[in-house]
Amino acid sequence: MTVQLNETHAPHLKSWVASANDGQTDFPIQNLPFGVFRRAGSHEHFRIGVAIGDQILDLHLAQQAGIFAEVTNSALANALAASSLNALMNLGNGVASQVRLALSKALREGATAQEKLVGALIAQSEAEYALPAQIGDYTDFYTSIHHATSVGKLFRPDNPLLPNYKWVPIGYHGRSSSIGVSGQQFRRPVGQTMPPNATAPNFGPAKRMDYECEVGMFIGQGNALGDAIAVDQAEQHVFGLCLLNDWSARDVQGWEYQPLGPFLAKNFASTISPWVVTMEALAPFRTQWTRDAADPQPLPYLDYPDLREQGAFDIELEVLLQTEKMRAEGTAPQRLSLSNFRHSYWTVSQMVAHHTVNGCNLQAGDFLGSGTQSGPRPEEAGSLLELTEGGKKPIVFSNGEQRVFMEDGDSIIMRGWAQKDGAVRIGFGAVEGRLLPARSF
Amino acid sequence: MTVQLNETHAPHLKSWVASANDGQTDFPIQNLPFGVFRRAGSHEHFRIGVAIGDQILDLHLAQQAGIFAEVTNSALANALAASSLNALMNLGNGVASQVRLALSKALREGATAQEKLVGALIAQSEAEYALPAQIGDYTDFYTSIHHATSVGKLFRPDNPLLPNYKWVPIGYHGRSSSIGVSGQQFRRPVGQTMPPNATAPNFGPAKRMDYECEVGMFIGQGNALGDAIAVDQAEQHVFGLCLLNDWSARDVQGWEYQPLGPFLAKNFASTISPWVVTMEALAPFRTQWTRDAADPQPLPYLDYPDLREQGAFDIELEVLLQTEKMRAEGTAPQRLSLSNFRHSYWTVSQMVAHHTVNGCNLQAGDFLGSGTQSGPRPEEAGSLLELTEGGKKPIVFSNGEQRVFMEDGDSIIMRGWAQKDGAVRIGFGAVEGRLLPARSF
Repeated sequence: MTVQLNETHAPHLKSWVASANDGQTDFPIQNLPFGVFRRAGSHEHFRIGVAIGDQILDLHLAQQAGIFAEVTNSALANALAASSLNALMNLGNGVASQVRLALSKALREGATAQEKLVGALIAQSEAEYALPAQIGDYTDFYTSIHHATSVGKLFRPDNPLLPNYKWVPIGYHGRSSSIGVSGQQFRRPVGQTMPPNATAPNFGPAKRMDYECEVGMFIGQGNALGDAIAVDQAEQHVFGLCLLNDWSARDVQGWEYQPLGPFLAKNFASTISPWVVTMEALAPFRTQWTRDAADPQPLPYLDYPDLREQGAFDIELEVLLQTEKMRAEGTAPQRLSLSNFRHSYWTVSQMVAHHTVNGCNLQAGDFLGSGTQSGPRPEEAGSLLELTEGGKKPIVFSNGEQRVFMEDGDSIIMRGWAQKDGAVRIGFGAVEGRLLPARSF
Repeated sequence: MTVQLNETHAPHLKSWVASANDGQTDFPIQNLPFGVFRRAGSHEHFRIGVAIGDQILDLHLAQQAGIFAEVTNSALANALAASSLNALMNLGNGVASQVRLALSKALREGATAQEKLVGALIAQSEAEYALPAQIGDYTDFYTSIHHATSVGKLFRPDNPLLPNYKWVPIGYHGRSSSIGVSGQQFRRPVGQTMPPNATAPNFGPAKRMDYECEVGMFIGQGNALGDAIAVDQAEQHVFGLCLLNDWSARDVQGWEYQPLGPFLAKNFASTISPWVVTMEALAPFRTQWTRDAADPQPLPYLDYPDLREQGAFDIELEVLLQTEKMRAEGTAPQRLSLSNFRHSYWTVSQMVAHHTVNGCNLQAGDFLGSGTQSGPRPEEAGSLLELTEGGKKPIVFSNGEQRVFMEDGDSIIMRGWAQKDGAVRIGFGAVEGRLLPARSF
């Protein structure tokens, strides 16, 4: 099932878009992530684009310029003229791969298409973004054993890691309607919380506001209700990955989550990065998947030949915080953590196979979250709950401010990238979101 | 907030559609539920209709016949020409109420519109249905304290009813993609289960297949992200109610559900009835909401003036089972239970207010489930899990067959209706679904 490296991954490739070649950009010609954009502040229809350096290539215009003439799919022109990626996702990764190859050829140094495509570029600095797809269903997994163990200790001190964890890729359904794209601002949620030793709940703004650093997955071609997607075919049903901040109100969560899971603690907002990096672009960054020797091996429906050698992805995940004061005084966002998706206890393929093993149907544009990606070391924790040990150990910043949980006006910025010797570094861009004060109530 | 009775509820009203007046139909002129239909077996576009007796009135044709001339909304014509109810739902209950009044006038005995509308009728026996709306997000609540207590005893013998239950209308997010309309057939799900005293999970078809008898709610006009819907306004945001069968694989659920709630145990299929009965049609059947004297009163955001006198709805809920053998031998479906929505510990208004108190946005066509509606007596239990005491006490049918959980080929039929002295009985029709054998694996 592994995507093989091909000419689109060649490290020597450069683009005629000069900013794609500076060695710093998240978007060299080896990346080519898909997104949905328009001119900022305009009332234009949103349209589909691909990031290249500091520019966006408008794919509808590129299609009209004829660069996809060799892609053999009669539905492609309509899919590229849409205002979301759903139709393109639904064509399957085979078509997406042909589109990628055509883009790679057309954007290379010396490409004859350059002249026709110059007018199809818009600077990212002049763009605004929409969600890449209309998300039908959103499922959030819980694949970091380090996160599950740390959080389990706080919610269930005597029983941190439940007996199903090493067998079942635990997941639950999330809320689609409140997912927004980077730049989302949202009010501090209001709700019920139960203070320690109280006999009746409090009602008011949540006090323990947190983020969760996750990898997001967009489903490409789905499956029919009743069919399962085999684990060794699963990545063919994943269009690509992005970054996800799954905002959480920990005090609401602690009171409401039993027995049916988190609800109002999570569904007030979730924020994702605008660019979807395809599975093909990530092929050079596959890496080993490992379990402790004492851990059970995955059941056959979750096991596949490439799992142990290259089932995981080496993607660095950085989280930064910027307070209102930092913004005012010009202080840059401060790093909270740096982790890596390779620590995930369950792989992308395993999540998809597990989700559909019972016949549940996935649809193009459906969205999966990986769960908070905390690494094995304390400084790799993907949430404030973990970093501050449940709010007991403040984080102190260089300007003297400190935090245990988020305060109004705080922004969280997440970045992701993949790099290794012999490959060109690719990035996910950023996802940024800001907490606003609670509504009056 | 209470919908007052008006001329559409008058018990003396009869329709020129004779079958609406037989005293037996679920769909007298006082009901007028909305649905989406087409001629069975055709490739027609689905369209919007209203049930009247044993007929369906095509609302696009009715609109073209001019019967909504007095409804003052410029978007109505497009909404009625659509193939789902989302656009009509989004216009709000004020518009829906005007549409209902116009329908009541046009379908009454002696209406001048009769001549123009005869051609806009199609027999229900010749129709097939689609989901009433494209469901964006689906949320399932857990509002029967009798169900929560019985099931809690089976999953957590030492801790059946959790301390949050009497404060928080517990809910969680469900799966939209696998919701189907009455007639849905689905395969027995395959998955992991953990047998008692085993050290590793089993993998195979679920053995403890169950249904859950619920009331479904379709959201009408929604709310913006960050805003809350006040509890005394909440019913203005509910377009209407239907029946919901939330199929459940109990053995999968028992192994997977901690700590984040049910997932594969529920998301393989959920089935709803095709007709949405409006809140206005249900106005005569409002009834008292009660708590035990020792129970806490609801927090202010869940309390409202009409709550105790008429916050609940008196809706009978009947569940029947028909095995393959019964179908073959012509034995009618056998009743499993009869319960009533009035036993719900939380009301429709409280569910909507709670769902949005944190700013979560609801959208037209979103769907809420009430959770299994078990009443206080054992024969009012809304699932096999409860009726058979966790699979220990078989149900024996008149043809000699018996069940603890569902077997392949079993159909579950649910019916709902409301009746009281001084009002015309209205019904929900039925929701039927059938369990097929597991896929090969």
